[in-house]
Amino acid sequence: MTSSDISIDQLGLVGREDAEYLLSLIRTIPGFPNENVLFRDFMPALADPRGLGILLKALQLALPVQRQDFDSVAGLEARGFLFGPALAASLGKGFIAMRKTGKLPPETISEEYTLEYGQESVEVETNAISSGERVLIVDDLIATGGSASAAAHLVEKCGGTVAGFSFVMELEGLDGRASLGTYPASALVTMPA
Amino acid sequence: MTSSDISIDQLGLVGREDAEYLLSLIRTIPGFPNENVLFRDFMPALADPRGLGILLKALQLALPVQRQDFDSVAGLEARGFLFGPALAASLGKGFIAMRKTGKLPPETISEEYTLEYGQESVEVETNAISSGERVLIVDDLIATGGSASAAAHLVEKCGGTVAGFSFVMELEGLDGRASLGTYPASALVTMPA
Repeated sequence: MTSSDISIDQLGLVGREDAEYLLSLIRTIPGFPNENVLFRDFMPALADPRGLGILLKALQLALPVQRQDFDSVAGLEARGFLFGPALAASLGKGFIAMRKTGKLPPETISEEYTLEYGQESVEVETNAISSGERVLIVDDLIATGGSASAAAHLVEKCGGTVAGFSFVMELEGLDGRASLGTYPASALVTMPA
Repeated sequence: MTSSDISIDQLGLVGREDAEYLLSLIRTIPGFPNENVLFRDFMPALADPRGLGILLKALQLALPVQRQDFDSVAGLEARGFLFGPALAASLGKGFIAMRKTGKLPPETISEEYTLEYGQESVEVETNAISSGERVLIVDDLIATGGSASAAAHLVEKCGGTVAGFSFVMELEGLDGRASLGTYPASALVTMPA
């Protein structure tokens, strides 16, 4: 299956040749993890040295706010961990890990959110975010925006401010972007859900 | 609790001042996740811009083999994802994600290993590792070496070769290093289990 239904969007900032090279490394797999889902697999892009370089460069170029307008980068377990620390280090920022329940030592602050079937929650260490700290939240994918909104609430519960969101991929038609309110957000590529 | 029982080991390659700065950011938490365990928490080091930079620099300097002697970097979900892609990108290599069961789309190749209570398994996508590909395996911690050995078996099951292991932390007295056989391995810091 080709990736021809994927729009280059902000990925275009790296130039057409690199953007098309990266797109050629995103696989589309129908029926995973559930029937009627088209799974977009970017692991082949990470496994390719040029692909990984383009992806990290694109995230730097497509920041939703200026580099000086945030203090740190936060990423959600597990796929947000793939990009967050690399992006943070390249910008001279620190990285805040938002983990699944029970993985971080006490004390933690947590935020619950609703999935299609059941509840999920995300945690950070108490004191991981300072009062007034401006946090850029990074994740691989925005679909309905449930986990991204929870991450934003968690930042605010800790006394920080959400500077914006950087996504690799955005699924259209699920109102994910609307769920983020007025926070600035960018996605490298967009595609039908 | 201080981190004074941690030996600087390979972390010394960044120089004494940076090494001590990084150590000052590793917290020791008794009784997590189980009683009688001293949990070593490096999340504060990631959250600190200078700490994150030192950590990534140290991993580059402490490679267990020469840069030209491996083709790619593999990392284990979830904490291996925090360092693996950043290290791979800084060396011009690709990154192979080793995930928990059911997270990767088909087809996958998996390897089971035994934990203190029960079985765990780790998977990669089929074709993620080419025949003869030389893979450096990165993880945050080596304790008994169970997950590291499983990762090595997985690389070999895919037709690749294990070039070596890079760990951030090594617990002494658990025979983890011995379980890796003759593979080259390095750890930034070592400490009693």
